[in-house]
Amino acid sequence: MVSGSRAGRRRGAPDTKGEILAAARVEFGEKGYDRASVRGIAARAGVDAALVHHYFGTKEKLFLAALEIPFDPEAIAARIADGGLSGLGERAARTFLSVWGDPDKRAPLLTLLRSAMSNEAAATMLREFATRMILGRVLAAFDGLPDARLRVEAMVSHLFGLVITRYVLQLEPIASTSDEDVIALVAPVLQAYVDSAIAEQ
Amino acid sequence: MVSGSRAGRRRGAPDTKGEILAAARVEFGEKGYDRASVRGIAARAGVDAALVHHYFGTKEKLFLAALEIPFDPEAIAARIADGGLSGLGERAARTFLSVWGDPDKRAPLLTLLRSAMSNEAAATMLREFATRMILGRVLAAFDGLPDARLRVEAMVSHLFGLVITRYVLQLEPIASTSDEDVIALVAPVLQAYVDSAIAEQ
Repeated sequence: MVSGSRAGRRRGAPDTKGEILAAARVEFGEKGYDRASVRGIAARAGVDAALVHHYFGTKEKLFLAALEIPFDPEAIAARIADGGLSGLGERAARTFLSVWGDPDKRAPLLTLLRSAMSNEAAATMLREFATRMILGRVLAAFDGLPDARLRVEAMVSHLFGLVITRYVLQLEPIASTSDEDVIALVAPVLQAYVDSAIAEQ
Repeated sequence: MVSGSRAGRRRGAPDTKGEILAAARVEFGEKGYDRASVRGIAARAGVDAALVHHYFGTKEKLFLAALEIPFDPEAIAARIADGGLSGLGERAARTFLSVWGDPDKRAPLLTLLRSAMSNEAAATMLREFATRMILGRVLAAFDGLPDARLRVEAMVSHLFGLVITRYVLQLEPIASTSDEDVIALVAPVLQAYVDSAIAEQ
């Protein structure tokens, strides 16, 4: 409530986009992605739904903006899934490290992970994002294999843990080992989740 | 500053133990385990070092009390390491899930992990705890194998990630899969870190 702040809002130009994003975080956090609606978010923000579409396009784009996801999930999922089951472990490790290794991308992702660790609504949003925007697309490569979703989640859990020990806790030597050496260590282990599914088929 | 509270401190009986623990968190967080001293912690708390020893025993016991670790790390490390390299992956998964699956133990561990995600001093304390009280003892079972520490840290990172997806984000189906089924899925993958070290020897 600082009046006269030069960096603050201009009089008569409220931060409508910011209010829509805040309303979206509440709506997605409370209802999850499916039950949340652009109409409901617009109502929370006190604006017309058409304005939400004008600013953000689709519900999916609004969701990604609300979470401040610093990459295109479709492109990321494609980098992992394209090429099929052979080499999927390595592509997953390489893609994850390339995103989290970039400090500009890591900062908003860490904020999201921190929020999810202590806030149920944020956990819901991260869960919806991971399952819907990434896992679902990677899962397509596993078509027909037993326990595919469980295996993909185990791979994801490994990669989450890896970025925490490497970039947050900074355990040595894993924090200062080169990306290539970490990939060489982790890729065959991730691939084991794929290969065991093939073996059980 | 509620006066007359029945649950509050008694007059003349300040919470010396609590002040020592608070001082210990600051000292361990700033200096790490090695450089922190009982003398320094006592000075921060404004008490004699003998009183710290009287209440908490050794520096290690004071450290565990400050972190509110809800288990005996020596016993946990022994459950994983005893029996050597054969079956180590399964014992690590089983032990981790037994601790994190217990809500009474999970609550303080989650608090610690949350703090470490957003606070450098808490990250230092968790790193020191993990490397000194658990990893060091499990590492003994790897005696002489190449990149043993890196491999043990990769196992730990996987287990951290697993408890986050299972108990915090609650990704389905991994959150509601039975302990035994999760162990069956994860143990051979953790064991691959051990077996690849043996193969490279």
